Amino acid sequence: MRSLELPRLPLLLLFDPTWESLDARQLPGWFDQAKFGIFVHWGVFSVPSFGSEWFWWYWQKEKIPKYVDFMKNNYPPDFTYADFGPQFTAKFFDANQWADILQASGAKYIVLTSKHHEGFTLWGSKYSWNWNAADEGPKRDIVKELAVAIRNRTDLRFGLYYSLFEWFHPLFLEDESRLFQTQQFPVSKMLPELYELVNTYQPEILWSDGDGGAPDTYWNSTGFLAWLYNESPVRDTVVTNDRWGAGSICKHGGYYTCSDRYNPGYLLLHKWENCMTIDKFSWGYRRNAGISDYLTIEELVKQLVETVSCGGNLLMNIGPTKDGIISPIFEERLRQMGTWLKVNGEAIYETRAWRSQNDTVTPDVWYTSKPKSNLVYALFLKWPTSGQLLLDQPKATLGATEVKLLGHGQPLNWTSLEPKGITVELPHLTFHQMPCEWGWALALSNVT
Amino acid sequence: MRSLELPRLPLLLLFDPTWESLDARQLPGWFDQAKFGIFVHWGVFSVPSFGSEWFWWYWQKEKIPKYVDFMKNNYPPDFTYADFGPQFTAKFFDANQWADILQASGAKYIVLTSKHHEGFTLWGSKYSWNWNAADEGPKRDIVKELAVAIRNRTDLRFGLYYSLFEWFHPLFLEDESRLFQTQQFPVSKMLPELYELVNTYQPEILWSDGDGGAPDTYWNSTGFLAWLYNESPVRDTVVTNDRWGAGSICKHGGYYTCSDRYNPGYLLLHKWENCMTIDKFSWGYRRNAGISDYLTIEELVKQLVETVSCGGNLLMNIGPTKDGIISPIFEERLRQMGTWLKVNGEAIYETRAWRSQNDTVTPDVWYTSKPKSNLVYALFLKWPTSGQLLLDQPKATLGATEVKLLGHGQPLNWTSLEPKGITVELPHLTFHQMPCEWGWALALSNVT
Amino acid sequence: MRSLELPRLPLLLLFDPTWESLDARQLPGWFDQAKFGIFVHWGVFSVPSFGSEWFWWYWQKEKIPKYVDFMKNNYPPDFTYADFGPQFTAKFFDANQWADILQASGAKYIVLTSKHHEGFTLWGSKYSWNWNAADEGPKRDIVKELAVAIRNRTDLRFGLYYSLFEWFHPLFLEDESRLFQTQQFPVSKMLPELYELVNTYQPEILWSDGDGGAPDTYWNSTGFLAWLYNESPVRDTVVTNDRWGAGSICKHGGYYTCSDRYNPGYLLLHKWENCMTIDKFSWGYRRNAGISDYLTIEELVKQLVETVSCGGNLLMNIGPTKDGIISPIFEERLRQMGTWLKVNGEAIYETRAWRSQNDTVTPDVWYTSKPKSNLVYALFLKWPTSGQLLLDQPKATLGATEVKLLGHGQPLNWTSLEPKGITVELPHLTFHQMPCEWGWALALSNVT
Amino acid sequence: MRSLELPRLPLLLLFDPTWESLDARQLPGWFDQAKFGIFVHWGVFSVPSFGSEWFWWYWQKEKIPKYVDFMKNNYPPDFTYADFGPQFTAKFFDANQWADILQASGAKYIVLTSKHHEGFTLWGSKYSWNWNAADEGPKRDIVKELAVAIRNRTDLRFGLYYSLFEWFHPLFLEDESRLFQTQQFPVSKMLPELYELVNTYQPEILWSDGDGGAPDTYWNSTGFLAWLYNESPVRDTVVTNDRWGAGSICKHGGYYTCSDRYNPGYLLLHKWENCMTIDKFSWGYRRNAGISDYLTIEELVKQLVETVSCGGNLLMNIGPTKDGIISPIFEERLRQMGTWLKVNGEAIYETRAWRSQNDTVTPDVWYTSKPKSNLVYALFLKWPTSGQLLLDQPKATLGATEVKLLGHGQPLNWTSLEPKGITVELPHLTFHQMPCEWGWALALSNVT
Repeated sequence: MRSLELPRLPLLLLFDPTWESLDARQLPGWFDQAKFGIFVHWGVFSVPSFGSEWFWWYWQKEKIPKYVDFMKNNYPPDFTYADFGPQFTAKFFDANQWADILQASGAKYIVLTSKHHEGFTLWGSKYSWNWNAADEGPKRDIVKELAVAIRNRTDLRFGLYYSLFEWFHPLFLEDESRLFQTQQFPVSKMLPELYELVNTYQPEILWSDGDGGAPDTYWNSTGFLAWLYNESPVRDTVVTNDRWGAGSICKHGGYYTCSDRYNPGYLLLHKWENCMTIDKFSWGYRRNAGISDYLTIEELVKQLVETVSCGGNLLMNIGPTKDGIISPIFEERLRQMGTWLKVNGEAIYETRAWRSQNDTVTPDVWYTSKPKSNLVYALFLKWPTSGQLLLDQPKATLGATEVKLLGHGQPLNWTSLEPKGITVELPHLTFHQMPCEWGWALALSNVT
Repeated sequence: MRSLELPRLPLLLLFDPTWESLDARQLPGWFDQAKFGIFVHWGVFSVPSFGSEWFWWYWQKEKIPKYVDFMKNNYPPDFTYADFGPQFTAKFFDANQWADILQASGAKYIVLTSKHHEGFTLWGSKYSWNWNAADEGPKRDIVKELAVAIRNRTDLRFGLYYSLFEWFHPLFLEDESRLFQTQQFPVSKMLPELYELVNTYQPEILWSDGDGGAPDTYWNSTGFLAWLYNESPVRDTVVTNDRWGAGSICKHGGYYTCSDRYNPGYLLLHKWENCMTIDKFSWGYRRNAGISDYLTIEELVKQLVETVSCGGNLLMNIGPTKDGIISPIFEERLRQMGTWLKVNGEAIYETRAWRSQNDTVTPDVWYTSKPKSNLVYALFLKWPTSGQLLLDQPKATLGATEVKLLGHGQPLNWTSLEPKGITVELPHLTFHQMPCEWGWALALSNVT
Repeated sequence: MRSLELPRLPLLLLFDPTWESLDARQLPGWFDQAKFGIFVHWGVFSVPSFGSEWFWWYWQKEKIPKYVDFMKNNYPPDFTYADFGPQFTAKFFDANQWADILQASGAKYIVLTSKHHEGFTLWGSKYSWNWNAADEGPKRDIVKELAVAIRNRTDLRFGLYYSLFEWFHPLFLEDESRLFQTQQFPVSKMLPELYELVNTYQPEILWSDGDGGAPDTYWNSTGFLAWLYNESPVRDTVVTNDRWGAGSICKHGGYYTCSDRYNPGYLLLHKWENCMTIDKFSWGYRRNAGISDYLTIEELVKQLVETVSCGGNLLMNIGPTKDGIISPIFEERLRQMGTWLKVNGEAIYETRAWRSQNDTVTPDVWYTSKPKSNLVYALFLKWPTSGQLLLDQPKATLGATEVKLLGHGQPLNWTSLEPKGITVELPHLTFHQMPCEWGWALALSNVT
Repeated sequence: MRSLELPRLPLLLLFDPTWESLDARQLPGWFDQAKFGIFVHWGVFSVPSFGSEWFWWYWQKEKIPKYVDFMKNNYPPDFTYADFGPQFTAKFFDANQWADILQASGAKYIVLTSKHHEGFTLWGSKYSWNWNAADEGPKRDIVKELAVAIRNRTDLRFGLYYSLFEWFHPLFLEDESRLFQTQQFPVSKMLPELYELVNTYQPEILWSDGDGGAPDTYWNSTGFLAWLYNESPVRDTVVTNDRWGAGSICKHGGYYTCSDRYNPGYLLLHKWENCMTIDKFSWGYRRNAGISDYLTIEELVKQLVETVSCGGNLLMNIGPTKDGIISPIFEERLRQMGTWLKVNGEAIYETRAWRSQNDTVTPDVWYTSKPKSNLVYALFLKWPTSGQLLLDQPKATLGATEVKLLGHGQPLNWTSLEPKGITVELPHLTFHQMPCEWGWALALSNVT
């Protein structure tokens, strides 16, 4: 693996294991600039690839008929979830192929589920013997292979999702039955595993999840985070989220995720991320999904635009197959995003939220900005039939303000409105002259 | 299954078992009107779903390293092709779901591989015990389920592909080693099976394939076809192709297929069909195909337009998964075709070739016609940047000729050129006003 | 395979295809002299190896709860019998190892189930594609391997069992539904297969079974047998049994079998065979059999003695595992028989029935004879506590008659009784001096 | 499970965690009286059931060609040992059936491999998630089922084998690489598991094994044993062996085992046990074993006689199949032992070693004694041809000494020799009058 040779400050234990201290840490700048990442949900759940990555839970804990019947109709009566393990072959998994596709999407970071609630680790965890990808199924170190491939590409960072709890781990269940007054599970499983994971793979995002109803004190989250920020090999660049124990979400940790598919529609003061998934119904792959189950590229572009305008990052999820294939429909969406960002990336990457997030008059217009360059971007998702786009928010200045359509280049005519607002004359373009589809961006210079 | 209650003539044995007689049969009219069908390649080859539906042949006969290595790397040393049989589960196969998707494509007929060269029959053939979908794998009568679902939809006809030879059938191999001087295989396998198939499922297309290098006399093709045309339950409406023995292709039988992906680019006097596949490299499903392996919707529309203009039908192929799923990328292409045909079907269905097939001046313009309605259709695949489309072929008449864009409806301005040709002013439409993407059609009335 | 170079008579078509003619054929002499053979039941039924080799029938036709539940509890709902095929691996099958063990039993012939009612052929039958041992499961020609190994041993002959009908073959079922007025199954399956089998493997016993309720005319048995006796490569030495159509058993054909485990206890005028099995409840292997399910060596010796005394041959059955192993308990019984025959074979092989079969006074005493040597053998299964064995049947002559215990050798004292009978003084032998266990034989010369 | 209601002394911490203290503990008396136990090796190694229960080690660590080739020839290239787990079905496992067979052998205790070096636990260990019989394979608590069945039989005690180390456990390997200076493995795996095992299943034998080259200090063996003897629920009756760390064997702990198949042939002062296995080459089941691979009943009786005469117990091993069957050959041997012990148990159970272990003149004569009854037993394995058994060791007294053959009952004639020794006239018995086979016992009263 590429060694991360970062200039290092002398080791100062800057952070105490308290939320007060940890929450005060400044988020490494790269994260806000990146704006767009890809989430990858992969694990043993990719074998049944039916219903949801929560398959095990729905089948055996909630006993939802759809899942119970699926097993009854297709497997011997005593088949267990563990029996799916050997079928998670990853036979076609090619980390470089993935990295190429992921990079083509325009994303700047990747987050892989190193371990989901099922407990199966995608690396050969010493603490998860015979229930990890090196011992069973792929018989490969998936985390390592992908880490190397991602880091061999410019401008891509590598992150890891990690579930604190495991639905059915007997030590977790025992701790739970004692109301978390014992810590067998964190002490012998979760904490050693997290240290191993960070030390070995040096993820620049640690995407924690799954508190299992236990408080951060049970997980010793603040202790771990203090180590992560003070001493770990990624202490200078690592970013974490806010899922570190019951009650910590949207409140403590690194950036906020608040809830799955969080997209508030207004500006948050604290950095946040909208994690969502192209398959409307599942994070893991579903063999029997139909095309209508996938978000369209128009819907995805809209998510990105809205999220970035409101100060968030978009973490868009795909679920590879048990064979290790990013299915063509996912590849299509990823490449479509990349095509769009090739034209409009200027209005996304390294931008900041503007004073207004969306236009008050024209629907589906969202703003971003680059203050240092005196630029405001208006991203619009519908091309007006009239050929004129009315923007109620910017105040233009004759002689100073210039308006361009990204991917087109020529200065456009515009008219200032009073007391504010501007009407832009969009160019007359035939079908094949359009710079892109699904959404467009105007760059407005020197507006206020 | 729906009983086909067709008015029947008294049974006259109109056809002799000779090519002279059989070739003189008039093709039932529905076929030429239909223009667009979907081919479905499904079988045990959908289990490895690697490389090609010719997997078995490439692996064991040609010993192509890619296939040999795939088996060596993933299966025990003595694994045979027959061992794939039980894994062809068709677990999610829902004939009505397929029929809905197939219908949504705008196709007017379906052709299913009832048996490919591997010999596995998708119905419970009495002559293929334990190597058919009722005994092994799906344990269902796939042919019947799909036949019923297709016939329950209006305006869809059901056809069957059937491979005469089988790569590795021991009786065929024995006949072959005797230079086809014995007929063990046709007598005990192929002929009884074909009669069973036609009598039981009453396909309206019988898409023969795979002569195995043997002449039609070996297969007793003319004897069978005489029965099919004279006496079979589908004698009035059935359509066959031209693959009935070595040397018969493009020469004898029903419509011509000539070769896979046949698309001559000029008008044929004999009815023909362009059978091609969305996956550029395979007819059967491939698990590890990437998006670039699939034809784009633009390329597919182009195929349809070219084919129909030259008097052919397009038979566009998909390959479902071993689970019985039409994968989302195929579903997307099928629905895109349907969307396009909703607008432009008028220029496709029930049309006839015009005197010119494509324009001599403007590239990517193709013509169809409806003589009874005095209509000529000009299908163009590129929207001209100038907004004006020059058509060199039609000769318009002032006062009589009218030009409309399908999906738009308003008469367009046009200018006649001398000595022939016409320039049409296309409407100024913004992105969302376009009636469709990927290709457009002008209806020109009263041109010559 | 060893070529059978037998002196050949000029080819005379001696036999007509009528029972009258065929029944008149004299049984080749080797069979009566052999006395003891081993039956081997092996096939796909060895995979479930549960209940009986009739597993398929009991499960799916008779729906016996024990079988239905076994499948329900251990396999997916749609698992079929055909799915067992790939698991019949024969992974440890070593024909030479089998032949060594079989030879060690003292048997003079072997009969292997080349095809049981399930239809799976242990050779690569051209008429049973993908349902035979060469295409599926072992992927080897089991019949050939065993034939070669057996013939490489002196004094062992190779025979084949063949089931005429197949429980679930669709063509047989169709013929049956037409009350056997059609002959699709014999014409396209059973007859071609039998000719192939005899021509290729040249069995010296053809052990027919399973008429499926159809008369010999349906099977064309007399036609086939006329060929077998007149023209086949084994016409001079082949032996067949009496199971050639409904009503033929115990009446027509070669030797009589009459019923499974036939052991009448009296002398038959027609040569017969007692086919029985070491496992009291099954011919095929059963994984879950306990020791009490197997006949003891004492019971087996008793079967042999009784059968031979009454003019029969004993055909003792074993069922190898799906892996191809003759399990240790079977091997133990086989070797025990061999040990016993080493001592007592003189009283078994090449003997003829005597005028009395068993003693009228002392129970468990059975007689055989060698008329040319003026020898009568008295086989006794219980060693008398008194040390004296009373034989009521032989009439001895002072000065001429001599009595010896096989394996001991010294002439024994005896006393003649009036009007017949003889009392023999058995030697006083301590435990380790006994020539054998389980049964003993006296050779009496010149008795009448 | 049956609660063990034993009278309990007030809890005194009698033992310190030192060998000095622990070694001084008196072995509970039941163990020496029992003399004969059955060892059961069962685990995932029963799935390949090839070569040895050390399959995994020989295959992947030592790379012995026989094992490497077996895998290469029969499994896909990336098949791992963990993949055998799901195939360990135990489908026919019936603890009561086992208990019946085990009891019929005459054994007084059972020792089951609760966990072998492979690490797979036969109970649902909380510390071996997804690598135990409750989560995978049997999906049952094997230890519990057998414990209940054994305890429901009178006069049978339940013991457990437990391997301290695990060949491939990553934490063990890490400790090992650090020369056992860290104790990750004992702390998080082995010790918690042992406490769980003893508390839950209350074994009366704890048969430790597999120190992995680490000293007892690494394993914290003395600490654990102090708890076992002072506080555990089985503290009053539990027996342990001597395999508690490198160097402890034959030196510390409970009774001595010294080595596998230990049978010194002379009297030891410390209680010991001869653990050996019926299959000469393996402790786990081997599918392809032949009859010559199993010890004969004569050899087994000899082992028992020799061992008990020298003060040892015999622990005779069987290996059930992956299906949970005690194969017939094992069942036969077990029942044969039981038959023999029915007659000769008086000379085995509850006896003590005599002053001589074996006779100095007559070979294969071994002595045991019951001092309180003034009885000496002479067990002889060969019945003398002369009918007279010369015993050189006992000194008889006319008028006081009586000699009987067990199973016969009548006093036998004897002659005293000078200066010591006795010649016994064995009864003249015909074959069926013998009280038993394979070995006999004389009871001599009042000899010195």
